[in-house]
Amino acid sequence: MPAFNPLIEKLSPPPVPSVAAWGRAYDGSRGPLIDLSQAVPGYPAHPDMLKLLGETGSSKAFTGYGPIEGEAELRTAYAAHVSEVYGAGIGLRNIHVTSGCNQAFVCAAMTVAGPGNTVLMTEPFYFNHETTLAMMGVKTAFVACDAANGFLPDLVGLEAAITGEVRALALVSPNNPTGAIYPPSLLEAIFKLCRNKGIWLILDETYRDFLPTADQVPHALFSLDGWEDTLISLYSFSKSFCIPGHRLGAITAGPVAVEQIAKIMDNLQICAPRAAQAAVAKALPLLADWREENRQEIGRRADALKAVMRSVNDWKLDAIGAYFAFVRHPFPGRSSAEVAEKLARQAGVICIPGAYFGESQQNYLRFAFANADVPTIGLLRERLQNFSLS
Amino acid sequence: MPAFNPLIEKLSPPPVPSVAAWGRAYDGSRGPLIDLSQAVPGYPAHPDMLKLLGETGSSKAFTGYGPIEGEAELRTAYAAHVSEVYGAGIGLRNIHVTSGCNQAFVCAAMTVAGPGNTVLMTEPFYFNHETTLAMMGVKTAFVACDAANGFLPDLVGLEAAITGEVRALALVSPNNPTGAIYPPSLLEAIFKLCRNKGIWLILDETYRDFLPTADQVPHALFSLDGWEDTLISLYSFSKSFCIPGHRLGAITAGPVAVEQIAKIMDNLQICAPRAAQAAVAKALPLLADWREENRQEIGRRADALKAVMRSVNDWKLDAIGAYFAFVRHPFPGRSSAEVAEKLARQAGVICIPGAYFGESQQNYLRFAFANADVPTIGLLRERLQNFSLS
Repeated sequence: MPAFNPLIEKLSPPPVPSVAAWGRAYDGSRGPLIDLSQAVPGYPAHPDMLKLLGETGSSKAFTGYGPIEGEAELRTAYAAHVSEVYGAGIGLRNIHVTSGCNQAFVCAAMTVAGPGNTVLMTEPFYFNHETTLAMMGVKTAFVACDAANGFLPDLVGLEAAITGEVRALALVSPNNPTGAIYPPSLLEAIFKLCRNKGIWLILDETYRDFLPTADQVPHALFSLDGWEDTLISLYSFSKSFCIPGHRLGAITAGPVAVEQIAKIMDNLQICAPRAAQAAVAKALPLLADWREENRQEIGRRADALKAVMRSVNDWKLDAIGAYFAFVRHPFPGRSSAEVAEKLARQAGVICIPGAYFGESQQNYLRFAFANADVPTIGLLRERLQNFSLS
Repeated sequence: MPAFNPLIEKLSPPPVPSVAAWGRAYDGSRGPLIDLSQAVPGYPAHPDMLKLLGETGSSKAFTGYGPIEGEAELRTAYAAHVSEVYGAGIGLRNIHVTSGCNQAFVCAAMTVAGPGNTVLMTEPFYFNHETTLAMMGVKTAFVACDAANGFLPDLVGLEAAITGEVRALALVSPNNPTGAIYPPSLLEAIFKLCRNKGIWLILDETYRDFLPTADQVPHALFSLDGWEDTLISLYSFSKSFCIPGHRLGAITAGPVAVEQIAKIMDNLQICAPRAAQAAVAKALPLLADWREENRQEIGRRADALKAVMRSVNDWKLDAIGAYFAFVRHPFPGRSSAEVAEKLARQAGVICIPGAYFGESQQNYLRFAFANADVPTIGLLRERLQNFSLS
């Protein structure tokens, strides 16, 4: 067989299916499987969302190719939404629609960094960001985020890490895997650091609709001078609208960056699927109250997990925020993959090993608690308390 | 502003929207605009296809994340289809679903070639293949395909071009832009050359459902020893089912290659949109007769274009096949972009300049004749005959 691209060959197999396989080996003896692995909404899409998707799916209007940058209707609706959420003046020309937020990251990263360039990330990191850069031949450098600092990056450490090779800093807030919510003041300081250093700031905000407080402004960056020359912000419609299977995300950036991104998207897949774009354009204003109810529900799930973790000996909740908790398991010195695999096989709880987010995270597990309802989260108490590494 | 990735910055803007802009400058004086630019089916999707897309779009079953490699239902149905079309034994494990065939090419190319590696292509080439490789930092080399040889590559030339740097040969048959249909014997000889040289053969077969003869087997490669270690075949559901807006394609390859591709897809967008996958899985056997009618209709359009071109002085149809014709314009020495732009603005005919498929194709225009029905193609006679470069 001829050689494969070594950059691809050396990537590990996708982590989520591997973890799911551990869950299939669970015998059910402790009760139903609790899936805290992939970040998927634990409740169904709204009936009106499904109705809209049915209407646009069956419509002739969306069978042909669409604009590369996305349907004007969705770009306009999403620009209005971003303007409202952030109190900023965002227009259609600032928006590029993508097929999910992973693709938004591919586009953003490729826009600013080519093979041999360096992108700076925080560690623990979202594994697909790391593997995406690796498969494109982009180098990565990492700034450690300590539990003692709430898994937030430290400005001095960030500044020191921005060497001449670094083309961009990629952040995730609310964070995946830790859940950490970066305060607006920290984001502003980081933005200014990037602007001063002349590098791009890629900010993945997939989980921003699940902040603990209603009407909380995630940050003020879209109102700062020169934001279009520094910031590329990423978003996913998957979590907020419970439609990851329809693959829809969006980028908010300067028009000059949007032009570059369009060249990439044309090669990647010409345009994002159109029917879902048209449906979400309508759902965006329509389902605002429903999204707010879900935000509150995720808050109740976070509270339920906090209560569980307080009552479980030796397990420690080192961070919790929107969607994710980063949990310290009570088996220091053992690999996180071993702990996660046995937790799945023996106790019927699937989660992602900390080391998947960085080798130094062996003491952690990521719980995507938003996947499970409050009663299910309550079941964790007994599962964790009775679990031992045999 | 910080720097962009120079590999992206130096790409030209996407060609299809630029060409469409020329059409918008047409004043309508010669009659309706004739769009022969983008390869889009000139007839609507079947009502049953739309019905299925509506059903799966509104279904809860497809809102969550799906398998990276694609829905088992579609992989099974498409494997059975490929087995039937080629008289070969293809299984689910040979199939990877993608979001359109451009993405299939991205996955295939990235699987076998990284930054600095070389992929060999034929010239004229499909521009998105060339720009895709360029944006990934993959080098390209070209084998010229002469009009005198029906725009088919020459085996001796191919062999000489496969240097030690070349990781793969990328072909398109039926060809984009020329329409040239590679005979099965030529494809077999090329396959064997690639196998002997130890390089991959990427074969884009987006237009294979539009061969001039019913039940014509495109090639016998899937029955050859070791095909899984040499061939990666690409397909698009866009043209055959008239649903490019739903973005669905597929790769047929060895299971080991499919595993590599899954790692890439997980990073690119986790999985192709699911509702369209489920709908096409059902439509594939259901709409076989309808697809055959469309194949015949495209044949009638090809005949109509041949008749027109015979009667137009100085214009020459150098190649025509499935979907595309490669037309020699009567203005040697003038740039193909100038000819195409003026043809659009003055005569209301949009097509793609030859030079977009390679600098040496200045004497050509690509007509995507499948877009236009027979009466519309008849209108070309007067438009071309009366056209002059002012």
